[in-house]
Amino acid sequence: MKRDPFNETGCLKPEHGEAGQALQGNTFADLGFAKVDLSREQRNGYPEVIYGEGKTAEQIIGIIQAMRKQTVNILCTRLSSDKFETIKKATPDAVYYKTARCALVNRAEVKQTQSYIAIVTAGTSDVPIAEEAAVTAEAYGNRVARVYDVGVAGIHRLFARLDVIRGAKVVICIAGMEGALASVVGGLIDKPLIAVPTSVGYGTNLKGVTALLTMLNSCASGITVVNIDNGFGAAYSASMINHL
Amino acid sequence: MKRDPFNETGCLKPEHGEAGQALQGNTFADLGFAKVDLSREQRNGYPEVIYGEGKTAEQIIGIIQAMRKQTVNILCTRLSSDKFETIKKATPDAVYYKTARCALVNRAEVKQTQSYIAIVTAGTSDVPIAEEAAVTAEAYGNRVARVYDVGVAGIHRLFARLDVIRGAKVVICIAGMEGALASVVGGLIDKPLIAVPTSVGYGTNLKGVTALLTMLNSCASGITVVNIDNGFGAAYSASMINHL
Amino acid sequence: MKRDPFNETGCLKPEHGEAGQALQGNTFADLGFAKVDLSREQRNGYPEVIYGEGKTAEQIIGIIQAMRKQTVNILCTRLSSDKFETIKKATPDAVYYKTARCALVNRAEVKQTQSYIAIVTAGTSDVPIAEEAAVTAEAYGNRVARVYDVGVAGIHRLFARLDVIRGAKVVICIAGMEGALASVVGGLIDKPLIAVPTSVGYGTNLKGVTALLTMLNSCASGITVVNIDNGFGAAYSASMINHL
Amino acid sequence: MKRDPFNETGCLKPEHGEAGQALQGNTFADLGFAKVDLSREQRNGYPEVIYGEGKTAEQIIGIIQAMRKQTVNILCTRLSSDKFETIKKATPDAVYYKTARCALVNRAEVKQTQSYIAIVTAGTSDVPIAEEAAVTAEAYGNRVARVYDVGVAGIHRLFARLDVIRGAKVVICIAGMEGALASVVGGLIDKPLIAVPTSVGYGTNLKGVTALLTMLNSCASGITVVNIDNGFGAAYSASMINHL
Amino acid sequence: MKRDPFNETGCLKPEHGEAGQALQGNTFADLGFAKVDLSREQRNGYPEVIYGEGKTAEQIIGIIQAMRKQTVNILCTRLSSDKFETIKKATPDAVYYKTARCALVNRAEVKQTQSYIAIVTAGTSDVPIAEEAAVTAEAYGNRVARVYDVGVAGIHRLFARLDVIRGAKVVICIAGMEGALASVVGGLIDKPLIAVPTSVGYGTNLKGVTALLTMLNSCASGITVVNIDNGFGAAYSASMINHL
Amino acid sequence: MKRDPFNETGCLKPEHGEAGQALQGNTFADLGFAKVDLSREQRNGYPEVIYGEGKTAEQIIGIIQAMRKQTVNILCTRLSSDKFETIKKATPDAVYYKTARCALVNRAEVKQTQSYIAIVTAGTSDVPIAEEAAVTAEAYGNRVARVYDVGVAGIHRLFARLDVIRGAKVVICIAGMEGALASVVGGLIDKPLIAVPTSVGYGTNLKGVTALLTMLNSCASGITVVNIDNGFGAAYSASMINHL
Amino acid sequence: MKRDPFNETGCLKPEHGEAGQALQGNTFADLGFAKVDLSREQRNGYPEVIYGEGKTAEQIIGIIQAMRKQTVNILCTRLSSDKFETIKKATPDAVYYKTARCALVNRAEVKQTQSYIAIVTAGTSDVPIAEEAAVTAEAYGNRVARVYDVGVAGIHRLFARLDVIRGAKVVICIAGMEGALASVVGGLIDKPLIAVPTSVGYGTNLKGVTALLTMLNSCASGITVVNIDNGFGAAYSASMINHL
Amino acid sequence: MKRDPFNETGCLKPEHGEAGQALQGNTFADLGFAKVDLSREQRNGYPEVIYGEGKTAEQIIGIIQAMRKQTVNILCTRLSSDKFETIKKATPDAVYYKTARCALVNRAEVKQTQSYIAIVTAGTSDVPIAEEAAVTAEAYGNRVARVYDVGVAGIHRLFARLDVIRGAKVVICIAGMEGALASVVGGLIDKPLIAVPTSVGYGTNLKGVTALLTMLNSCASGITVVNIDNGFGAAYSASMINHL
Repeated sequence: MKRDPFNETGCLKPEHGEAGQALQGNTFADLGFAKVDLSREQRNGYPEVIYGEGKTAEQIIGIIQAMRKQTVNILCTRLSSDKFETIKKATPDAVYYKTARCALVNRAEVKQTQSYIAIVTAGTSDVPIAEEAAVTAEAYGNRVARVYDVGVAGIHRLFARLDVIRGAKVVICIAGMEGALASVVGGLIDKPLIAVPTSVGYGTNLKGVTALLTMLNSCASGITVVNIDNGFGAAYSASMINHL
Repeated sequence: MKRDPFNETGCLKPEHGEAGQALQGNTFADLGFAKVDLSREQRNGYPEVIYGEGKTAEQIIGIIQAMRKQTVNILCTRLSSDKFETIKKATPDAVYYKTARCALVNRAEVKQTQSYIAIVTAGTSDVPIAEEAAVTAEAYGNRVARVYDVGVAGIHRLFARLDVIRGAKVVICIAGMEGALASVVGGLIDKPLIAVPTSVGYGTNLKGVTALLTMLNSCASGITVVNIDNGFGAAYSASMINHL
Repeated sequence: MKRDPFNETGCLKPEHGEAGQALQGNTFADLGFAKVDLSREQRNGYPEVIYGEGKTAEQIIGIIQAMRKQTVNILCTRLSSDKFETIKKATPDAVYYKTARCALVNRAEVKQTQSYIAIVTAGTSDVPIAEEAAVTAEAYGNRVARVYDVGVAGIHRLFARLDVIRGAKVVICIAGMEGALASVVGGLIDKPLIAVPTSVGYGTNLKGVTALLTMLNSCASGITVVNIDNGFGAAYSASMINHL
Repeated sequence: MKRDPFNETGCLKPEHGEAGQALQGNTFADLGFAKVDLSREQRNGYPEVIYGEGKTAEQIIGIIQAMRKQTVNILCTRLSSDKFETIKKATPDAVYYKTARCALVNRAEVKQTQSYIAIVTAGTSDVPIAEEAAVTAEAYGNRVARVYDVGVAGIHRLFARLDVIRGAKVVICIAGMEGALASVVGGLIDKPLIAVPTSVGYGTNLKGVTALLTMLNSCASGITVVNIDNGFGAAYSASMINHL
Repeated sequence: MKRDPFNETGCLKPEHGEAGQALQGNTFADLGFAKVDLSREQRNGYPEVIYGEGKTAEQIIGIIQAMRKQTVNILCTRLSSDKFETIKKATPDAVYYKTARCALVNRAEVKQTQSYIAIVTAGTSDVPIAEEAAVTAEAYGNRVARVYDVGVAGIHRLFARLDVIRGAKVVICIAGMEGALASVVGGLIDKPLIAVPTSVGYGTNLKGVTALLTMLNSCASGITVVNIDNGFGAAYSASMINHL
Repeated sequence: MKRDPFNETGCLKPEHGEAGQALQGNTFADLGFAKVDLSREQRNGYPEVIYGEGKTAEQIIGIIQAMRKQTVNILCTRLSSDKFETIKKATPDAVYYKTARCALVNRAEVKQTQSYIAIVTAGTSDVPIAEEAAVTAEAYGNRVARVYDVGVAGIHRLFARLDVIRGAKVVICIAGMEGALASVVGGLIDKPLIAVPTSVGYGTNLKGVTALLTMLNSCASGITVVNIDNGFGAAYSASMINHL
Repeated sequence: MKRDPFNETGCLKPEHGEAGQALQGNTFADLGFAKVDLSREQRNGYPEVIYGEGKTAEQIIGIIQAMRKQTVNILCTRLSSDKFETIKKATPDAVYYKTARCALVNRAEVKQTQSYIAIVTAGTSDVPIAEEAAVTAEAYGNRVARVYDVGVAGIHRLFARLDVIRGAKVVICIAGMEGALASVVGGLIDKPLIAVPTSVGYGTNLKGVTALLTMLNSCASGITVVNIDNGFGAAYSASMINHL
Repeated sequence: MKRDPFNETGCLKPEHGEAGQALQGNTFADLGFAKVDLSREQRNGYPEVIYGEGKTAEQIIGIIQAMRKQTVNILCTRLSSDKFETIKKATPDAVYYKTARCALVNRAEVKQTQSYIAIVTAGTSDVPIAEEAAVTAEAYGNRVARVYDVGVAGIHRLFARLDVIRGAKVVICIAGMEGALASVVGGLIDKPLIAVPTSVGYGTNLKGVTALLTMLNSCASGITVVNIDNGFGAAYSASMINHL
């Protein structure tokens, strides 16, 4: 589908793309308070995802209804169980994942990947973020291997699971406190690693900023980082990679 | 080589890996001031890379000589032209890339990928970081498409090159100042995007922290981030993805 | 009314203004806990506005009563619905705008402008700040065009509304998260743009500081910035410009 | 030219704008290291401005030559006198403003405004930023009234010049240290005020961050803010307003 | 009492003070959880003051009882009305100042000063901190002149009260938001000014840090600063000065 | 001269001051780049002081000449010895204090105080700031007692000089690193203490911010603080107090 | 047990340790949400400690039951009394320390040390952190001397207890606000001092960051620091030292 | 020498120490710019150490001469080779350690410990800080085992040296970048670990703040931390522990 941008001598060919062409056919549903992007899947490979925080249950229901006109799976993240109660009444086919704080309306068959994503956490308190990542990844058709609570304070726990981690096509590493796990895992594998700092910790953890800084400065190569507590974002990128 | 960690019912199989096995055969050369990791390629897929800043020319020469015992390409980043003059005398086969501030000793044939990495910059001042990424990616056998100076202040320049960017297997997006380009590109493609904030800017740019924060908080999904000015790290991860 | 400060050769003429003259006739009502500025309209073009946060309902009622002695419209921002219940009893002609969290006592006819202010938001969660701006602008007699939820993750939504935005005399652009929308809009219009960062986001959004930094460092020119969540301030400045 | 986006009942009319149309006819010159935006004036009202910092003299000369194909004035900011020496040889019609650190190639007649911009500084050390603003504003055809060194430590100096300030159509207020001047001026005028924090100061001035924070939190309304030391940006916005 | 440390030629005389002598006779009451300093008045001129936050009502009662053995006035700051209810039962002679959130047990006659302290606030929301200062200052025998809500947005209010402020022996200036009032007052008086930043504001006010930075960087001389919201500390220092 | 603002019942009398009256007779010399405040002494008790940093030698000479028209002493702080060489030629009666980096032109007799200011430093590296304070204080006619290098690591040195410190009318305490000395001295004296944080230290000293924070949060009462390295400001306030 | 790594000439002997050997025999109990480290005591000298915050009562009970299979004492820190109520039912032999917010299940005899740890606090509000340290230290068999509320504002209280502090083998010094106590104690003793900053304070205390910075920059030597409010960590390290 | 502060029932005995007694016999040499503490060894176990930064060579010579009157070894840290050249002439028995940037005047026999301190670094660039620690530790009579460049990117290098590290009585762990090494080592040993963050790194390393935060938040217990680049401080504390 994509043209090869290099000519036969290995140089970039001149190009004359235009915004109009690039965005042609992109549409949205205008709800007043929201303009639901109906071309996200065509453009980005995945349909729009509803970020539940800061939206009322009524607004979320409105967006779900606008999206139902397409045959796409509808994922809503950062959703409290309270709001879900209200939403459930309007969309009875929605399923809630409590630890992950996500709701999913499954409306399209998604083929599962052969390769898998390993989701690794340093501690027990990081599990909610890991589950947000896992639910997202599975909604996008990825096999997921969960490897939880293998922080470096007891590093033999990590070595005992290293084969699972090394077998993945892409690894998500989730840690709060000082976030050192990402560097250690990064030094032991030959696959892309997406690091997720969590706000788990106290004092100079600074609500996850310390873990974030650790991961950005890792002495191991091959590590990229997402925002604090952003399990969804890590899974989204990992899914893109796992589907390559 | 990797065993599938799932059993026939889709659950993780029990495992009994050990650190010893995991690290068996890993070796290093002890130079006193440095312990050169000779198993990096076996473990991570790429040989150790020399970070030139904070090392003397003599130390770098010592490390290069230790690495020469293996048939690997030797890359040295963040290397001033002054230091390279000294190093050149000891290793005449080294080549220097001035804008990228990298040296390369090519000792092993690397097969070039069919797919390519697009390296996109917002401005002209981001080019040195882009070239560090490009030289690194090419040293690892990747085809690279350079798309420079397409920042959002003149967004038609980006649309004119969008086909090249969309054709890549993975995109590196490099921007200083407010770093908004990453969000815009991320919203237009369906491939993983690695964002590199640069220290280009002044005042509240805070030496790149602003661009970093922008990229971490992007409203577009599928974006992961590396440290400020870390062109090498972005290319390293992109190469891992491009070779999948 | 204002003298031209330049003489016939284009140089500034010498001047001998005095504080006394500058402030002559300025008065205030002293309530003990507050000194209500009764000359704000004469000096600044608009009457004093009551900032509701940190004041009790009783204090606000007192200030409204002091202002009633003049024929000016009375605007109170950052007002909870709880406090308004109490205030409503004392000033039954007050109207409450729930999303905007503002109350207005309309006591003077305001002529509406021909030109209009465009208020643009990146997302749905930015709407409360946008409504604070809209209510303020309309109270000051401006026509307002609301363009909500056109963030760069789905940039075709912005292009679909670009004509409305370009038609305004001044544009207010409101965004949380990474705030990239301001740069993109700024690059597409030839009118002054006032950017409002919002505290919408999480993690390294840092309660709006990230969006603020993005807007201050924009690569597009013609952008000025107000405090985080300061919809009122943006509308106040925009109204000054729209009335020129 | 712009259509009125409101229909006869005062509501926004439906619209079907497209990116292609919005960006139609926008062009650029591709120099490899830079893509010079040749449609900036058509889109934004002003031609592209060259930010001199971080560009070599050779790169600047290249951009100037690309721009010469249009009949526009060429402004280059943040330009050291060293670089200008080199540039001067290639473009002998360029003029250098030393205190402002700007160069200007005057190639198009610009009509001067009747109304004027007042540029006010708190101290003597803020003058270089003020001159960057003044040169920019004058290059765009604005009359400028300079009111320097009227900081609040000797507030009678400000009152002595208040008539000049009040007579302007828009005011630029430039201050370092604690930046209090912006609040005082803002409370005395009825015109838009653009505040420019400068990096003048020491200790907890934090290179201008303190003045920036002061200006963003001003108790006076009608103040918007630009980046630290961004005299150019303030003048660009002020010119847009002054030309309304 | 104090010896003059200079000899007849104006040089410092040699001295042989010892810690033992310096602290001789200093005593305390050991309550286990607290060691009540019974020599504070002898050493510092004022008895120990109880900081109510983070202490239980029972602990405060214990400390009051230990202090009752001396004939000193007992001041307790940062005390919630809830805790005071409990304390009142054990010490019925305690008086509560609601706005100031202070309790006072008057047990010693304090002579009132002839000179007075002016306490000046920028806004209405700063009054609680001002009252903490006023109650403290009055408990220490100072006459106090309250000048509230004279912020620079309506600077004529300040000029109308300037004579009161200039007549004081020492001035306390209390402001939140951008804190510019301190600089303006400082530039108009010839007496020491103690500035108190308050946490009043939002967004980049950063809970008072902005006002603090403003005050530390004031272009006016003669200003010293205390911690955010520290009305007590300002009054304590002002009282020392007022009693000189 | 100052009227007592309280009436016979102890309440504030109504007042009708005006800005004009307040600033009447205030004058300045307009040099273009500077407006020299010629009424500073009348208004603040001390003539304007020249802050040497960020001004050229020529500008400083101009300001000195404007001030010479009055019979006041002229103090210039933050002055490099290089600039002084040039200034010396134009104003041969200027004296340079090398450690303090100040110049003084003595043109008016100043009566020396009987009471004295104690200037206390924690270490040897704090001496330049201490000397800036001492030269300033002496220029304003204060006797000064220097007590240097008595930091808490060897607290017996402090106790040995405690009598000198206690004998002062006001104490300036200067410390870098962690700044603990201010708290210890503050707990031992009954006089106002002005604390000056210095930028002496490394790592998390953060160029003096740590010492500043320490001083603002002191558990000892009676301490007020000035900006980092602001020896001049501390001496200015101390002189005001010492002259009461 | 440990081999002396130096050979007879005082140089390090070559070594061939392996991860396998280093971690041989290390085991854990896999509970799914947690992997309880059963080799912590063998590796680190102390069994794993349960950090109660962010874990449910059910999770804590599960971990306690897994640990019961070993004969070790089980310590749980940061445990609310609410959660303890639930845990108490499942493990009736658990004891709760209210001020310290710790629970302890005593299952192994611990021999008490002859030497002791002194735990020193600056104020009464620091006592909860001090008790967390004391309970931890005593659980590990250390004698503890509590010296509370001896902050530098009344330094004679510290001198009165100095003999107890000097008699300890290691000192823990706990302080909030400005944290100056650590420097003073550090300058008076010849034993290791572990400093614990607490979040006690307000305004620029920044939730303990100020005390932390003070302690890291202490002018006294021999001081090391742990995280804010980390009484457990200080006691853990102190116990290691006290048992040497 | 120290009395046991516990009585026969295990409670603290009442005590009546006094500052005089505590500091009795403490002396210093007053050089004007410095008060050399001659009782540091008696009070703290080690003589005063000269911090070379911010002192002139002349001042350092003066302090050395004052210290020569005692029979103690004189250590000067943070000393440039330039200054040492001057010092060498005045004190020919001084020895300079180039990498460590320390000078030592050996005047007293120091007995060497049997146990040793392990000094571990993550990278080659951390070696200067490690050598400052090593020279300090050796000057105080400690055996030192250097284990350099064993960062977690190649963790087998650490395991290969784990026996040396485990054999030490106390471990100093030095790392820049993300500082993860401290957590890994801390999880593998049963001895106190003192962590030293270094300023090695770039971008969000923030001159060592990232490594510092990592170490303060370590998930491994038994770790205490010193200031950034403070090799001396770590060695001082480690020596105290090693000598117990």
